[in-house]
Amino acid sequence: MNKIIECVPNFSEGRDLDKVEKIVDCFRAKKGVKLLDYSSDPEYNRSVVTVVGEPEALKEAVFQSVKKAIEVIDMNQQSGQHPRMGAVDVVPFIPVKNVTVEEASELATAFGQRVGEELNLPVYLYEKSASATYRSNLSKIRKGEYEGLTKKMESPKWKPDFGGDKPHPTAGAVVTGAREFLIAWNINLATTDLSIADKIAKKIRHLSGGMRFTKAMGIEIKERNMVQVSINMTNFKKTSLYSVFELVKIEARRYGVNVTGSEVVGLMPLGALVDTTEYYLGLEGFSIDQVLEYKLLEE
Amino acid sequence: MNKIIECVPNFSEGRDLDKVEKIVDCFRAKKGVKLLDYSSDPEYNRSVVTVVGEPEALKEAVFQSVKKAIEVIDMNQQSGQHPRMGAVDVVPFIPVKNVTVEEASELATAFGQRVGEELNLPVYLYEKSASATYRSNLSKIRKGEYEGLTKKMESPKWKPDFGGDKPHPTAGAVVTGAREFLIAWNINLATTDLSIADKIAKKIRHLSGGMRFTKAMGIEIKERNMVQVSINMTNFKKTSLYSVFELVKIEARRYGVNVTGSEVVGLMPLGALVDTTEYYLGLEGFSIDQVLEYKLLEE
Repeated sequence: MNKIIECVPNFSEGRDLDKVEKIVDCFRAKKGVKLLDYSSDPEYNRSVVTVVGEPEALKEAVFQSVKKAIEVIDMNQQSGQHPRMGAVDVVPFIPVKNVTVEEASELATAFGQRVGEELNLPVYLYEKSASATYRSNLSKIRKGEYEGLTKKMESPKWKPDFGGDKPHPTAGAVVTGAREFLIAWNINLATTDLSIADKIAKKIRHLSGGMRFTKAMGIEIKERNMVQVSINMTNFKKTSLYSVFELVKIEARRYGVNVTGSEVVGLMPLGALVDTTEYYLGLEGFSIDQVLEYKLLEE
Repeated sequence: MNKIIECVPNFSEGRDLDKVEKIVDCFRAKKGVKLLDYSSDPEYNRSVVTVVGEPEALKEAVFQSVKKAIEVIDMNQQSGQHPRMGAVDVVPFIPVKNVTVEEASELATAFGQRVGEELNLPVYLYEKSASATYRSNLSKIRKGEYEGLTKKMESPKWKPDFGGDKPHPTAGAVVTGAREFLIAWNINLATTDLSIADKIAKKIRHLSGGMRFTKAMGIEIKERNMVQVSINMTNFKKTSLYSVFELVKIEARRYGVNVTGSEVVGLMPLGALVDTTEYYLGLEGFSIDQVLEYKLLEE
């Protein structure tokens, strides 16, 4: 695959695994599409699929999965702990290889348009694809959930981008758009004092004065007698992991607390490892194409 | 590809590109084999191919390339600047993914045995596959070159591992074996004093008391008004890049010289980036399987 986009569609079915398999089958044995992972949570009543592929092949497979989900999920019968506004709740597209976030956004928009026109499912564009700034945040779009959709869509402010302005009778509405890869990362502190993790989180996160693409909060890990600064890096290309790590060490020093390590939850793109290695080894003129395994991905 | 081995065969033909293409064709359009690069040097009269593949498919393709090279190269007519002992001079096998160096060595040995038996080409095993310690070093095996082979093979000490004890009449002999991936890496110093780079090289390299899998020497880069510690990392899994980088910084401090950066020449395996990132970000429990692009390599 030359150009690679990742898609992480969230389906509002996490209990009936036969139905989940029918949806996931849309990503199997498709040329140019690779299913990386899927998992279902019965409490949430939600399944999350991770799939990568060439842009057009991926878009087609995701469209088919949405069509299938509408067939098998009836939102009037659906309940679970996770907020949701439709049978397919959110479909983010993430640039992975030789693709800009703008290209991923064009793909998401074309995907949304087709979903609206062919499946009569109302579509909201979010994140990088949002048609207005106030619509970029998922939780704001989803506020009121499936049950509140009819009322929400009556407001001109919340008219869907595609697919009319009435909820689909059994599938509600769907949110799609492009966003950068999110790295979930926790930095460990050698203290049990949660207030220190919280204070450090406030210093490094965008919301309260820190780095532009960093979200953070303090959390307690009782079984290890420590606290963590729990971080979401929402654009590692612009806010580097090493900057945040060094900032956390600088802040921790104020409290005489050591940073003992960190952990990445889930996947991390190669670009983040290249960026970190380049910084700490002072690499000049290094390119991701010099990584042996990256070359193996070329056609 | 689940298991991946790299092979970098060196052929003693770098001028007649038609012949080179015939050899390189053995790596094209073969299932489980991927040609990454090849280049020919007319001064050396030598071509170096970089190919990766699944063990068995790779072994078969390399065998076919050796067969073809014997057909098209006549060592009695061959001369060039690079030392060589046969039409196919050396065939290293390097473990890349889900393969140990021991497995790569078994593959190299099986390859060597087949070359000896089917092509009547004498084979020396070297590096990790050497049948005795004194035979692990390529330059010692190759000493005397093609022209000295008959005499060399008369000595019991230099009896080939496979393929009889007389040189092939037109192809000489071949060296094969498994070795670890070699990272070529230069660390830049903010001085023009070559003796400082030399002194640091001596402190960090195995030969003179330094790290086990590090070779190093000082070199001058006149156009940039600086010197470099030029390094070969012969087993980055056991001697880490970060250890060597930090040691160079520690030594440079003695001379009041700054380390300004470094450069990787050619390819670097993902494992080296993971190791570096793990160290500097203090990552706990991180696995190469968490690298998105690495997952894409899975079947």
